[in-house]
Amino acid sequence: MAVITLITDFGDRDEYVGVMKGVILSVNPEARIVDITHQVEPQDVVQAAYLICASYPYFPPQTVHVAVVDPGVGSSRAILAGRCKGHLFLGPDNGILSLISDDNPWEELVEVRNRDYFLSPISRTFHGRDIFAPVAARLAGGLDIHKLGPVFDPRKMKRLHIEKPQWSDSGELRGTVIAIDRFGNLLTDITEELIPRPGTEGDCRIEIRIGSTNISGLSACYDSVSQGIPLALIGSRGSLEISVNSGSARHYFGVEKGCKIRIKKENRNPPI
Amino acid sequence: MAVITLITDFGDRDEYVGVMKGVILSVNPEARIVDITHQVEPQDVVQAAYLICASYPYFPPQTVHVAVVDPGVGSSRAILAGRCKGHLFLGPDNGILSLISDDNPWEELVEVRNRDYFLSPISRTFHGRDIFAPVAARLAGGLDIHKLGPVFDPRKMKRLHIEKPQWSDSGELRGTVIAIDRFGNLLTDITEELIPRPGTEGDCRIEIRIGSTNISGLSACYDSVSQGIPLALIGSRGSLEISVNSGSARHYFGVEKGCKIRIKKENRNPPI
Amino acid sequence: MAVITLITDFGDRDEYVGVMKGVILSVNPEARIVDITHQVEPQDVVQAAYLICASYPYFPPQTVHVAVVDPGVGSSRAILAGRCKGHLFLGPDNGILSLISDDNPWEELVEVRNRDYFLSPISRTFHGRDIFAPVAARLAGGLDIHKLGPVFDPRKMKRLHIEKPQWSDSGELRGTVIAIDRFGNLLTDITEELIPRPGTEGDCRIEIRIGSTNISGLSACYDSVSQGIPLALIGSRGSLEISVNSGSARHYFGVEKGCKIRIKKENRNPPI
Repeated sequence: MAVITLITDFGDRDEYVGVMKGVILSVNPEARIVDITHQVEPQDVVQAAYLICASYPYFPPQTVHVAVVDPGVGSSRAILAGRCKGHLFLGPDNGILSLISDDNPWEELVEVRNRDYFLSPISRTFHGRDIFAPVAARLAGGLDIHKLGPVFDPRKMKRLHIEKPQWSDSGELRGTVIAIDRFGNLLTDITEELIPRPGTEGDCRIEIRIGSTNISGLSACYDSVSQGIPLALIGSRGSLEISVNSGSARHYFGVEKGCKIRIKKENRNPPI
Repeated sequence: MAVITLITDFGDRDEYVGVMKGVILSVNPEARIVDITHQVEPQDVVQAAYLICASYPYFPPQTVHVAVVDPGVGSSRAILAGRCKGHLFLGPDNGILSLISDDNPWEELVEVRNRDYFLSPISRTFHGRDIFAPVAARLAGGLDIHKLGPVFDPRKMKRLHIEKPQWSDSGELRGTVIAIDRFGNLLTDITEELIPRPGTEGDCRIEIRIGSTNISGLSACYDSVSQGIPLALIGSRGSLEISVNSGSARHYFGVEKGCKIRIKKENRNPPI
Repeated sequence: MAVITLITDFGDRDEYVGVMKGVILSVNPEARIVDITHQVEPQDVVQAAYLICASYPYFPPQTVHVAVVDPGVGSSRAILAGRCKGHLFLGPDNGILSLISDDNPWEELVEVRNRDYFLSPISRTFHGRDIFAPVAARLAGGLDIHKLGPVFDPRKMKRLHIEKPQWSDSGELRGTVIAIDRFGNLLTDITEELIPRPGTEGDCRIEIRIGSTNISGLSACYDSVSQGIPLALIGSRGSLEISVNSGSARHYFGVEKGCKIRIKKENRNPPI
């Protein structure tokens, strides 16, 4: 089987996504194409980078994940193809693939240069159609990744300007709302590993502060609190999520993407 | 062939739908996945319940129809899988499957409990990915439904608080606009069977009242009236639909979902 | 392989597109269905006609392209099926297929009338489901197009009221913005062939006027100019496109679809 996923900022009103699929099926009639989303904010490379990480692990091994959020299309920016954790990835070298490899060194990484696998002629504005689609179709068909171009040093890959949250010495951690989903849930960059679990670290408990509201501890699920009440939990991405049961945390807190969240450890050991 | 349809309130901006498809293809690479819609209003179980009924009959027998509008995700609400009219259905026990069976008794119905068919670990917020997707993929692959869990009594299925329109003794019927489509057509819960056809019941004719406007009788198609003029017809769901030729009934009448429609029988027998 | 593309104005909130796919898969389980877009403005036949032309050449030969923007559904308008340039097309006779054939005479063209290939009964409001979907599924399965109905004279096909831009004797050309994409790029009806290339016609250069702004000559790609600066280039459809590097030309110029663009030839031969 040959599965190809697509993440783009092309939206759903224009012919762009459909045309990419036409090219893919022309090259590889067996390809199964799955849309992750085409509603990335125009040119929001960071949002796309997070979406890749949130989606790829749930696909079969050897799936080709294509991310086309590409403000530099037509310029001299490189296009990269790589293999990591048994999946294949294809995207421009603008940071979009840089979160995948944080702790998973690339097994293979090449710069895509071989025009034998591109459409011809190549436009200067739509590499999704002219390069990404036919190359993805070939990769999904089993093409040796090294046929695409020379090896690319992962250390030279463009990075995103993203600071990972860390605990300060005073027991505080500042994270960021990196996405707000359709339900108004606030998805943060505070991963599960950063949060002390009940029963560990002396019976420490966390206090989460967003705006002027405090949320005490983690809930197990949305309806652990009453309707309309905010809560924090570990969401489906394995990160801290701020929600409102049967409501929208976005509206409740009046916040947008980029908003800051603070967590404090609270030692609840009873006085002896 | 193994077809799976999806109805959710997940929208198209987040990774949720794509991830469900990744899980489905990981379990059952042959599955054909069809989106009905992911634009159900967040947590609008009633809307989803109507959409299932409007779509399932047009799919091949044995299609697995999955509906994930699930405000109670992570709570103790049950998940149900059933067979009805040769199709398979999977959804939470919150009423979402309750309109299918109104006059079609369930051939089989079970509570989905067998964790062998779930992802592991199971999140408390995204059963679409962790339970519905892998179970649907198995059902589409021919898994015996009884492997999923114990038989569930259909009479114990949660119901929606929906009143079916009925003719009063005075010859009036009140119905409700249950959906407004992209064209602004008002789709009602007044099914074709409720409406006397011309030539029956003495030569009775109907008069439809919406807001302060009367529409006389049913039209055959949109352009049976002039452009910009409202009309009533039997729409594609087999129910009464209020439309405006080349226009939007929503805008014409200034109404929203939930608005009431009245029908009166008008006896047109000529005086003898 | 049997590929079917869909262009409709059905949007993504209602069951209409999903139901069409159910019908297609019921008739032809092997069909691969690709959405071009379902976000055509309600009843905007012209927009759909351009989208067909922009997308079909990128699909495999024998692909069936279905366009359902059909204000006359249920009336006496004909439905046409044709073969052109190795592709198959299916749509109402309202002009939607008329731009395909401008310089590509139809190899075959028939009026779709044979009810053997329709669903039964046929609604008066949803021919996408009842006629277009099952007929497309049959065509994709290799049905002889002449089985669908009698030959239709291409010269009798309904035309759109579209004027093609032409150079005036005074060296000016007026074109129209026929679409604005998600990025705010202005797509015009001024095809590449109409624009003199540098080095031809005695080193002539073009000056493009939109609103009160002049753009001099064509850029090679978006970042040929600084961020926030407007430019003109040959876009992915092979036509003149007005863009703003890392911005939206729609917002920059404050224009909408239908806005006019003027081009003047500028002779840059140095004085002797």
